[in-house]
Amino acid sequence: MRRKLTTGLLFLLTMATPGVALAQVDPETKVIVDTLWVMVTAFLVFFMNAGFALVESGLCRAKNAVNILAKNFIVFAASSIAFWAVGFALMFGNGNSIVGLSGWFLGGADNSPAMADAYQGVFAALNWTGVPLYAKFFFQLVFAGTAATIVSGAVAERIKFSSFILFSFILVAVIYSLGGHWAWGGGWLAGMGFADFAGSTVVHSVGGWAALAGVIFLGARTGKYLPNGTVRPIPAHNMTSATLGGLILWLGWFGFNPGSTMAADPGAIALIALNTNMAAAAGCLAATATAWVMLGKPDLSMIINGTLAGLVAITAPCNAVTVGSSVIIGLVAGVLVVYAVLFFDKVKIDDPVGALSVHLVNGMFGTLAVGLFATDGGLFFGGGFGKTMTQAIGIVAVGAMTFSLSSIAWLLLKATIGIRVSKEEELEGLDTGEHGMEAYAGFVQAQEMRAEVI
Amino acid sequence: MRRKLTTGLLFLLTMATPGVALAQVDPETKVIVDTLWVMVTAFLVFFMNAGFALVESGLCRAKNAVNILAKNFIVFAASSIAFWAVGFALMFGNGNSIVGLSGWFLGGADNSPAMADAYQGVFAALNWTGVPLYAKFFFQLVFAGTAATIVSGAVAERIKFSSFILFSFILVAVIYSLGGHWAWGGGWLAGMGFADFAGSTVVHSVGGWAALAGVIFLGARTGKYLPNGTVRPIPAHNMTSATLGGLILWLGWFGFNPGSTMAADPGAIALIALNTNMAAAAGCLAATATAWVMLGKPDLSMIINGTLAGLVAITAPCNAVTVGSSVIIGLVAGVLVVYAVLFFDKVKIDDPVGALSVHLVNGMFGTLAVGLFATDGGLFFGGGFGKTMTQAIGIVAVGAMTFSLSSIAWLLLKATIGIRVSKEEELEGLDTGEHGMEAYAGFVQAQEMRAEVI
Amino acid sequence: MRRKLTTGLLFLLTMATPGVALAQVDPETKVIVDTLWVMVTAFLVFFMNAGFALVESGLCRAKNAVNILAKNFIVFAASSIAFWAVGFALMFGNGNSIVGLSGWFLGGADNSPAMADAYQGVFAALNWTGVPLYAKFFFQLVFAGTAATIVSGAVAERIKFSSFILFSFILVAVIYSLGGHWAWGGGWLAGMGFADFAGSTVVHSVGGWAALAGVIFLGARTGKYLPNGTVRPIPAHNMTSATLGGLILWLGWFGFNPGSTMAADPGAIALIALNTNMAAAAGCLAATATAWVMLGKPDLSMIINGTLAGLVAITAPCNAVTVGSSVIIGLVAGVLVVYAVLFFDKVKIDDPVGALSVHLVNGMFGTLAVGLFATDGGLFFGGGFGKTMTQAIGIVAVGAMTFSLSSIAWLLLKATIGIRVSKEEELEGLDTGEHGMEAYAGFVQAQEMRAEVI
Repeated sequence: MRRKLTTGLLFLLTMATPGVALAQVDPETKVIVDTLWVMVTAFLVFFMNAGFALVESGLCRAKNAVNILAKNFIVFAASSIAFWAVGFALMFGNGNSIVGLSGWFLGGADNSPAMADAYQGVFAALNWTGVPLYAKFFFQLVFAGTAATIVSGAVAERIKFSSFILFSFILVAVIYSLGGHWAWGGGWLAGMGFADFAGSTVVHSVGGWAALAGVIFLGARTGKYLPNGTVRPIPAHNMTSATLGGLILWLGWFGFNPGSTMAADPGAIALIALNTNMAAAAGCLAATATAWVMLGKPDLSMIINGTLAGLVAITAPCNAVTVGSSVIIGLVAGVLVVYAVLFFDKVKIDDPVGALSVHLVNGMFGTLAVGLFATDGGLFFGGGFGKTMTQAIGIVAVGAMTFSLSSIAWLLLKATIGIRVSKEEELEGLDTGEHGMEAYAGFVQAQEMRAEVI
Repeated sequence: MRRKLTTGLLFLLTMATPGVALAQVDPETKVIVDTLWVMVTAFLVFFMNAGFALVESGLCRAKNAVNILAKNFIVFAASSIAFWAVGFALMFGNGNSIVGLSGWFLGGADNSPAMADAYQGVFAALNWTGVPLYAKFFFQLVFAGTAATIVSGAVAERIKFSSFILFSFILVAVIYSLGGHWAWGGGWLAGMGFADFAGSTVVHSVGGWAALAGVIFLGARTGKYLPNGTVRPIPAHNMTSATLGGLILWLGWFGFNPGSTMAADPGAIALIALNTNMAAAAGCLAATATAWVMLGKPDLSMIINGTLAGLVAITAPCNAVTVGSSVIIGLVAGVLVVYAVLFFDKVKIDDPVGALSVHLVNGMFGTLAVGLFATDGGLFFGGGFGKTMTQAIGIVAVGAMTFSLSSIAWLLLKATIGIRVSKEEELEGLDTGEHGMEAYAGFVQAQEMRAEVI
Repeated sequence: MRRKLTTGLLFLLTMATPGVALAQVDPETKVIVDTLWVMVTAFLVFFMNAGFALVESGLCRAKNAVNILAKNFIVFAASSIAFWAVGFALMFGNGNSIVGLSGWFLGGADNSPAMADAYQGVFAALNWTGVPLYAKFFFQLVFAGTAATIVSGAVAERIKFSSFILFSFILVAVIYSLGGHWAWGGGWLAGMGFADFAGSTVVHSVGGWAALAGVIFLGARTGKYLPNGTVRPIPAHNMTSATLGGLILWLGWFGFNPGSTMAADPGAIALIALNTNMAAAAGCLAATATAWVMLGKPDLSMIINGTLAGLVAITAPCNAVTVGSSVIIGLVAGVLVVYAVLFFDKVKIDDPVGALSVHLVNGMFGTLAVGLFATDGGLFFGGGFGKTMTQAIGIVAVGAMTFSLSSIAWLLLKATIGIRVSKEEELEGLDTGEHGMEAYAGFVQAQEMRAEVI
């Protein structure tokens, strides 16, 4: 009866003070619209696999295109099994503040879509969203898959196919899910107020740290850094792919961020979608201008990566900042990414597609940006340093854990099946060596491209 | 007043027994959310046209790319007109147990979104879904278009453009719609309990049987099977296309299967989407492993086709099986598709893209899988052989009808305008012969590719 | 209390007279479903950026692909900033019948989602849709971005990158928004009953007029029209791109037209989606047939452009005509576009991708079609010439304004930073000159392609 009364009062309230957003609808209806929103946005995030596949393969060489496409295709299959069997339980299963310990293979009690105190089951950390368990899992799965895909770009053009699949499995099953438990699964970071709405840290910088470890243990591509100190540019083979991939990722982010409400809350999703878009736009323009000034011309890969940088940076703060702040965050991200690309080349960290500059650097920046720009408690909005310090703690903690565990995983793989293809295979291209086929049969490729890299 | 009471009781019920899924919402609201779901998922299925276009063109040669793209583009236009004018009436129009006989050009009485007994009109077979007639039609149209597209892949690289358009028109207007009437339009298969939730048989194996007939009457591509018994591999020209296409199809299947509820039922769509994804993932991994073992390397086209095989197989049972069963169904599909590809080459059935292995073989398997894995009455769940037998009858009946009528259609076309391009045109490429243009002007192609196939 | 009663009565009504479409739902629920629909369709329209990028780059030469992709990528970023800062205020801000004058940077009072008389704020022209302000803005932004993208295609392969970005900014900030105010923002055209539901004029012909001005001041591409009167065909470099782009646009139009309801109205969105599809299908088939007859073969670029022509033409009338009329409108559009392409080449208006034939010619035709085919007041439905005359006035007024202001903008740019690249740069390709990179590094291009165009 109380609900009826509340609804009536709310209705009167709307008439009296138009413009008040009402979130209260029939509980049955709410489950439906929330589920629709979660599923549709999950589909968009799933589609980001295509975006990553195209950006990464497009920015690398034709001789490795099949390998890169295959990695990006199979990684979501591996992630699906890993997250279903183990990862989701570690991340959202009831347990302690360090790790979840129940819900393997989606088993165990669960009375979703019951919410809050009415929820009874082993995934209590997700009791704030009123959708069926399988919708919760599916939405979280497409996020887990994203983290694994990020690694792919940084280790491209020299990693063994089998090692990449195994590392992806470990990352999704354990490492990603552990960090996710801390921040989203009711773990200790959540407890201290760490805020990462859609995953600048949980997804993007985790992918970035895992990738950084991989790059360090793999080493640079043959011919990238010459003995005389020259950094040799290795040109992209298909900018059509890279551009389409960038636009697909921009589209996918409209699932990634607004979908992280996991509820069809009109005011929130409109704000988040707009913030997401404005940061992307600002990042795009800022990176274009920065590249134009620093490199002399507006490089298309910088235009794309600037946009992605803006998107990564707004991922954590998208629900907590104004539209104006989103533009500023995007501008900073767009400048940062260009400098980061130049920096990584200076220190001979060979990242073929700029994944570290986009996901690691701007994942960290975006997470900090919550502390700086949040209208509720951010430093620039009169909230003092507290929020920013909490964010910094989360960044460091998740980063240290991810880098350490990833290093162990990479070293184990290196000591057993090996992680790098032979030099001969690398020169010939991984497509032939790993898959026995070429990406563009019939098209004549300039042979000097292959010879030159020795 | 009764509704208010019901709602109140339902609300109390939720509180008392949390987790009970409630489907009862305001009838006005239900029409809205159901229509949103049907439209959005229909858009996703529509997008599968792009997926098919890319997979098929990517796996064939550059000299035929324009032709393949043109076929895949125009086929949906032709299907739209054919299904509007004739097909929808034959499939869903009131009639007898063999064929629908009313509703040409979407005409005739229809009081949708009224449902069940309240429905009055000529499309009574669709009175279980409460959306406007045009939404019903649009959703069914994108399915009909899919069936026609499947044929395209198997007959690629030697079929005349005009004949393909005409065959597509006949398939969608008559053959597909006839089988659809039997299973989904209130026909005799529906009457005996044949279960094909989203169309493993109605869409995929129908496309496969029509394609098989086409391949038989067309013959193999010149140079594919050499007189000395060698099977000559004809390499794919663009694996970027094929991979992107595969991911678009995976995305589209999230419309295909969950949308087939034609209602925004939270529990059902979450289960179906997850089952769809897990079968795809399992199919991907199983085909990769099988290809690795049997062919020595993880062939990317097998990775893609394994995923599609899992998707086709889960299409019929997606609403009726557990997540665990979906993984098993996907694993079987992924193994099946590799063996099927090798089998068809052995018997010299030349299918350039593996459409028969994916859609025909796994369409049949998926339909059988309902009988085996259904939690309600499946053989492995204690239900005996009855359900499986019913499924087998449906597979055989629809297959025999489709293969027979398709053969007649292909033979009529062969006897009149011809179905195969000249050998000279085939060697030069259909792009020049059929369309007077090339797909990649300016790119140098290896000439021996063309000479060799003589 | 009145609402409860109304709902109860409506419920009884549904039971009594099944099939009556009910639009009345809880106001809270309505805001949610309307916002879901607006956001999802806005995402689809956003994705059209990818479609335009692929169609345009695919239909041009490889040496200009990076430039075209970069233009199409950055144009939405520039549009986002321009429309946020200025355009939206000019278009929808309260003002006079010529121009909006409030709401810069989305500032000013606004109590959305309150509707109609309950609305209080500076964007009164949008008070007919009950979604949050940011959802309104985001939906309108993706439309504004589309107009700018249309220009890109017509001026391709010779425009300076910097000039294009500046022109796009001006177009979206001022010119587009001015025309939009007249028709959609409560301006004088709206006042006289001008009907352009989703923007055949407001978006497409505006883009077309701005493009026409650009083409005139830029001149034709070097080597296109030879001194001896020959029109030299310049072949497309990537028909895979163009076809995928065409299908993405077709998909995006399911956001463009049905989303323009800005409300989840089941009957309307089903009708509009179906009309959109049938016009596309008819345009596709008509252009195919016309090209086959006139040019001897079914040219794939005509097949794609015919579909787009049907889509542009149905954009204005999609909500006001029958399914049968949509087919006729599509057929006319498909014939028109082929003749228009030939016409523009005859008068030496060099439009590399047919943007004028698709968007300008069919934008005008589609707007007129409302006057001819509207079931409520159209000429062919017994309504006399009045409606058609109003439509013609709108076409001419918006066209004259857009062409004039665009000409001024182009001339200002020409007089300052210049609008055309040097002849040397054009011959070498804009990718090297403007961006310092190539689209397909490693692929051997036929050198005669470059030499020949001198």
